[in-house]
Amino acid sequence: MAVYTHLGAEDMAALIATYDVGTLVSAKGIAEGVSNSNWLIETTGCDGNGARYILTMYEFRIELDDLPYFLSLLDHLAAKGCPVPRTIHDRDGALYRMIGDKAVALIEFLPGVSVSTPTAGQARAAGRELARLHRAAADFPATRANAMGIAEWQRLAQACGPDGLATIAPWLADLVASELPRFAAAWPKGLPETVIHADLFPDNVLVLGDTVTGLIDFYFACNDMAAYDVAVTHLAWCWDPADGNFRADLSRALLEGYEGVRPLSDEERAALPLLAQGAAMRFVMSRAYDWLNTPADALVIRKDPLPLARRLEYYRDHPEIFA
Amino acid sequence: MAVYTHLGAEDMAALIATYDVGTLVSAKGIAEGVSNSNWLIETTGCDGNGARYILTMYEFRIELDDLPYFLSLLDHLAAKGCPVPRTIHDRDGALYRMIGDKAVALIEFLPGVSVSTPTAGQARAAGRELARLHRAAADFPATRANAMGIAEWQRLAQACGPDGLATIAPWLADLVASELPRFAAAWPKGLPETVIHADLFPDNVLVLGDTVTGLIDFYFACNDMAAYDVAVTHLAWCWDPADGNFRADLSRALLEGYEGVRPLSDEERAALPLLAQGAAMRFVMSRAYDWLNTPADALVIRKDPLPLARRLEYYRDHPEIFA
Repeated sequence: MAVYTHLGAEDMAALIATYDVGTLVSAKGIAEGVSNSNWLIETTGCDGNGARYILTMYEFRIELDDLPYFLSLLDHLAAKGCPVPRTIHDRDGALYRMIGDKAVALIEFLPGVSVSTPTAGQARAAGRELARLHRAAADFPATRANAMGIAEWQRLAQACGPDGLATIAPWLADLVASELPRFAAAWPKGLPETVIHADLFPDNVLVLGDTVTGLIDFYFACNDMAAYDVAVTHLAWCWDPADGNFRADLSRALLEGYEGVRPLSDEERAALPLLAQGAAMRFVMSRAYDWLNTPADALVIRKDPLPLARRLEYYRDHPEIFA
Repeated sequence: MAVYTHLGAEDMAALIATYDVGTLVSAKGIAEGVSNSNWLIETTGCDGNGARYILTMYEFRIELDDLPYFLSLLDHLAAKGCPVPRTIHDRDGALYRMIGDKAVALIEFLPGVSVSTPTAGQARAAGRELARLHRAAADFPATRANAMGIAEWQRLAQACGPDGLATIAPWLADLVASELPRFAAAWPKGLPETVIHADLFPDNVLVLGDTVTGLIDFYFACNDMAAYDVAVTHLAWCWDPADGNFRADLSRALLEGYEGVRPLSDEERAALPLLAQGAAMRFVMSRAYDWLNTPADALVIRKDPLPLARRLEYYRDHPEIFA
């Protein structure tokens, strides 16, 4: 949640000059992004009327080989009318450029805000845009495996160790020990696949009122089951942020919004309880790992894995919410 | 250099509704400010054509009693044509509002970037705007003492202690011991006073090419000698960021720019060598104190006091640069 690299105004102006976007007018480092630095850039625009962009510098974690997948996916989805930011290509047509050993990309700025407490109208709109994304991405030619699949949850669990997990909460260690082994054998196969966002928490959705103006942060996007993405989004949207309780109204709105565009098959619907538990396990494990491995002086705010562990239990004990 | 307080989109929208600026379109936390949190805000604007603002939440250090001074000063200077952001008053005319126990203010957004390596043209423009500010502020009715005056340098030196300073560098402890006692008796008296910015480093000046588009961050502004502000600005602008060497060309440009608007009297010019040493001591002491007292996990990047201590030595040994 910080700008990790200092990029002086002179460097920034030189970089912007490699794009056909006019000249630099303003650049503010923004406090977003965990594994990248971001600036909100204003230029005179190609037409002199002003334009805004997000400049992202990829700092950690990202595989440079994956960058063309993420960035050309944005172009593919934007061309099909999805509310995602287009990638601005440089004057040579490149999707990204290198500054030293770090890649940078310029993407469109989209209006809208990320809500902390979604309304049913916003959950419905998010469901609708997720389904439109799944449809629009179906013919995207590139593929990328889900690097955050079951094998990765197992690796993270091993890296944390039961003792490590117990330092977060003893019941978390027990939950992981009892639940994690269930997924590998039972995980659904043969459900429809497409490109999924895989991380569509409310922070990654921009809205104005009940209108979704932007889906952002596609750096976990991959080819996987559409229904798994529904499960991730359900995990992310359908809970009261204040008391942690399940919100049936948001769940109904999200699923109705989704199915208005892309109805779920019986097989997909039947798989949702397990997929949602898996989605919860995926974020429990990545957050628990980060919790145990984030240095005290890091610029990143650690996210608590425990609320998501509670959601896993709820999904396990209440499969009827998807009926 | 971070956003210390989470302000959800819903809270932000409610806050913006208390101003006559249209409705909230976008809000991005920006990575600026050491003792406050800042957001770059976009709204539909009063006229529906869109408008941008900086929202500042005062987190630390600031005395609430001082806020009307800083914020009404912006209005005073903007009304006289200085390139400073206007304070946006709320619908009740208030300069700032409270969110819980923290004050927030909405100020105009100004275009421009802060350069890392100023050119002579930019130093000249900065000098000119500093002089215009000193002239425009002369009839500002409120007053505020300089809280970062000699008594405060002495207090900070005592708080650091010679042993503390020596952990930064042994020669720094020696320099403070030998130089600090000189100021109290020799400090100039009777030079013309006005409102001074007192912190006009290049980060606090927005430029487009050689045009100054914004003077920002007035939270050290106070009533003091105009020539002292010239000295602070000289300390901040006239050195090579790469090798630390004095840059005679920038010095000449800054002073020429200033004197084109407000010529220095003989007394002011004669005082500059000592005022510049004092300006250096002021920032050496505040940076040394912050260096020793910033927790390792702070979101703030500590600034090195040593380059400024070298500048103090240079000013002491080369009074002729102001002749």
